[in-house]
Amino acid sequence: MKLSTLKSPYIRLRIERDQSVTDFSRLDIVKAVRREFDSGCLPAGSRLPPVRMLQHQLGIAKNTVQAAYEELVAQGILENRQRLGYFVLAPSNQRTVTKLATPAIPVLLKVPAVPRPTSKRGRNAKQPIRLGSAFIDNDLLPAERVAECFRAVLKCGVPMDYDAQGFAPLRALIAQRLEKRGIPARADDVIITTGSQQALDVVTRALQKRSIATENPAYGIGKQLFEMNQMEVTGLPLNPFDGIDMKAWRKLLVLNRPSIVYITTNFHNPTGYSYTTAELMQLIELSRELQFGLVEDDWGSDMLSYSEFRPPLRALGGDNVLYMNSFTKKVIPSLRLGYLLANETTRNSLLAAKRVATLANPTIVEAVVYEFVERGYYDTHLRRLQAELDTRYRQCLETLTELMPAGVRWTTPGGGPVLWLEIPRRVDLASLTERLKKKDVLLDARLNEWFFSQPHLHGTRINYAQESIERTRVGLEILAQELRNDLE
Amino acid sequence: MKLSTLKSPYIRLRIERDQSVTDFSRLDIVKAVRREFDSGCLPAGSRLPPVRMLQHQLGIAKNTVQAAYEELVAQGILENRQRLGYFVLAPSNQRTVTKLATPAIPVLLKVPAVPRPTSKRGRNAKQPIRLGSAFIDNDLLPAERVAECFRAVLKCGVPMDYDAQGFAPLRALIAQRLEKRGIPARADDVIITTGSQQALDVVTRALQKRSIATENPAYGIGKQLFEMNQMEVTGLPLNPFDGIDMKAWRKLLVLNRPSIVYITTNFHNPTGYSYTTAELMQLIELSRELQFGLVEDDWGSDMLSYSEFRPPLRALGGDNVLYMNSFTKKVIPSLRLGYLLANETTRNSLLAAKRVATLANPTIVEAVVYEFVERGYYDTHLRRLQAELDTRYRQCLETLTELMPAGVRWTTPGGGPVLWLEIPRRVDLASLTERLKKKDVLLDARLNEWFFSQPHLHGTRINYAQESIERTRVGLEILAQELRNDLE
Repeated sequence: MKLSTLKSPYIRLRIERDQSVTDFSRLDIVKAVRREFDSGCLPAGSRLPPVRMLQHQLGIAKNTVQAAYEELVAQGILENRQRLGYFVLAPSNQRTVTKLATPAIPVLLKVPAVPRPTSKRGRNAKQPIRLGSAFIDNDLLPAERVAECFRAVLKCGVPMDYDAQGFAPLRALIAQRLEKRGIPARADDVIITTGSQQALDVVTRALQKRSIATENPAYGIGKQLFEMNQMEVTGLPLNPFDGIDMKAWRKLLVLNRPSIVYITTNFHNPTGYSYTTAELMQLIELSRELQFGLVEDDWGSDMLSYSEFRPPLRALGGDNVLYMNSFTKKVIPSLRLGYLLANETTRNSLLAAKRVATLANPTIVEAVVYEFVERGYYDTHLRRLQAELDTRYRQCLETLTELMPAGVRWTTPGGGPVLWLEIPRRVDLASLTERLKKKDVLLDARLNEWFFSQPHLHGTRINYAQESIERTRVGLEILAQELRNDLE
Repeated sequence: MKLSTLKSPYIRLRIERDQSVTDFSRLDIVKAVRREFDSGCLPAGSRLPPVRMLQHQLGIAKNTVQAAYEELVAQGILENRQRLGYFVLAPSNQRTVTKLATPAIPVLLKVPAVPRPTSKRGRNAKQPIRLGSAFIDNDLLPAERVAECFRAVLKCGVPMDYDAQGFAPLRALIAQRLEKRGIPARADDVIITTGSQQALDVVTRALQKRSIATENPAYGIGKQLFEMNQMEVTGLPLNPFDGIDMKAWRKLLVLNRPSIVYITTNFHNPTGYSYTTAELMQLIELSRELQFGLVEDDWGSDMLSYSEFRPPLRALGGDNVLYMNSFTKKVIPSLRLGYLLANETTRNSLLAAKRVATLANPTIVEAVVYEFVERGYYDTHLRRLQAELDTRYRQCLETLTELMPAGVRWTTPGGGPVLWLEIPRRVDLASLTERLKKKDVLLDARLNEWFFSQPHLHGTRINYAQESIERTRVGLEILAQELRNDLE
């Protein structure tokens, strides 16, 4: 890189002041330039700081700077290019172009390629049918209501400051809603996070001993998080058809002694599994016995219909259980807002971990979610959303019963966006995915991203929440046809 | 916790289906309840799943569920409480209230208490004069322009989806602006972050070897980040009066061999120091020789007046230098938006680290910052801001010259929000801070939060950007009076 090819930048000098006097003098500037020049640190062609800039920085008269520069011109060190400023002349023994060294590349972890968003297709292009995601149809989400809340917040102006723990009124509102669900909660113990992803990050980085146990298969980006954070991970086998083999879990927990067990109590991703109340109680008993902490991801309970719900782990176990939840998927994915519920003992470490990670969330988003919940829009939205998802779920079950060939099984989660479809092992999942993709049906069956070891399941999650009933049916028809080709 | 005290929640059961038939039968439900009941896992008083809920979940007739429950009532296991649902009866040998175990508390890192926001005072209460922060006066920030950009983005609706790397048009715009500053940049190498705090977090967690060197004194929350991330940290002594002793740095770098050196090239926090061009070039040479990566925090260069600038480390060293910057402090602190500029080799690991940390930023904030920059509001704002900060800076220098007793020294950073005030060692900084606080002047002189070892400086940063010229003067008058009391 040639400095002289950069038009505007000028070099920075250190100019020292004689400590016995108050002001900078002409001589201070002359000395500073000479010192750098003589030590070979001023490449030829470098531009000196503009006169008015030094005048401003040092709080001295323009003439003082000008006089110093002119003295250096007279010494044959600088030249004054009209209207462009003062530049370093090349000494006779120095090449005109200074070759800078190339610094080292930082040595980073080697990680699998992060998927990039697929390029937008044209409006008329055929959109593929997404059977493989864990998202909800954007058309079911309350974009207009959220926009209304943004406009309401903006009427009072954009919030200027932030609170690392999160917007206080939102924390109070969350605590109040949790109380109604049988979870005693103080606003002081709520920490707002960037989605539940950050909640999970914050918990793992605050641990004294970086070891964790979680379901196998696991939520994929959670698994990547643990791996990047170089944690010891114990996979606890989950079979959504048979439930938890608590004896097998106990053996693994005794063997590996993780610091915490992290589970998704309702609508686990990718299996769609929800824990029975009995299983949660056994887990609490194990936590007490083996002294591991419990972390509950409760993102799914809001998706359970009939305005009823099952007691969360946090309600059964009390406030030693770390609890996380999120508004993200259920309201608007791009809002990225979740939270952690700690207790008096755990709050400070978790807050410190969040603060060093991002300092805070954008306050306006927190204020907008506050408006959205406080105005009752969230509850109204959930009721509509649940009704629509219930219809899609029932249709999906009926379609599966109607179309799937013998040997294919599926779970009946009763809610949430996905169920687990188990496929006979003689079907090659990679080839199936590839063939479906060519027919514009997207599956996600990269089992290695979910399983810690040899997969004990052979299948994939099926999403019935992202596409319309009609499109889901078309997708399932194509899937069933491919499966019949393989199996018959 | 008594389950029976929770009004709404019902327990979750696992109901298994005979694999040879398609539908769930009455018997599947009866068996499931009996199995849990017999194993002692159904506490007396537990509420069974509502009939319509099981009907929905399993996709069966209401009568089937009802028949199963009535059978269990007949067996003396359940009771039907009118309009409340079915509940588990207490067997004669079981206590009525089930005592649940208390799970273990997760064992977290012990960290210093995170400061909480001070409670809002009344409107008429006297606001203290904040001489100790690194923030800019909210009154100088473009709140109305940003609100306008929010409204403009909302006209097209709240963005629904997110891109882990950040809103593509904003990345392209950032790359284009960097090019104009002599930093070749591709949109593909820009990663949007939650302020520069997340940029720093992402870099440190992506390192293969968790060791870093940075200025001593260091940015306080950066220092906490390194400590929480259990990194080896080398403090490189920075004296803002004398500049960098590159020989001393070299010795420390040879001794400790950090993976990266992280420096703030302009307006370092807390010293206000800016590196000379010669120092940056020497550092590039050292990076090549000792093979450490370079990370440049360039948050300050936008604060440099006269629409001119000095070549950043990234321009001098090329794209091996990781570069970070932020809109946060200069636009609106609570927007929390910064970015990293990587290169082809480093991009994927950094993106993966960001993705596991927070998945993505709120897209709407990214879109708003895009509007703000693209409409030219950012440049207009910077020009006004720089002019105002220049005036405050010059006034501050004049006031210091006028008021400070002999022995007190200060730096002349020429821009940015703070300068360093060096105070004779016989002044006790803790007592000084305490006495000023009583007079409603806030200093931040917790040297232990900035220094890695015994502080080689004895003083504090003085902010001239957060308060009006008049209030800064009042604050400095009170500070000077206290110093004279101590020194004369």
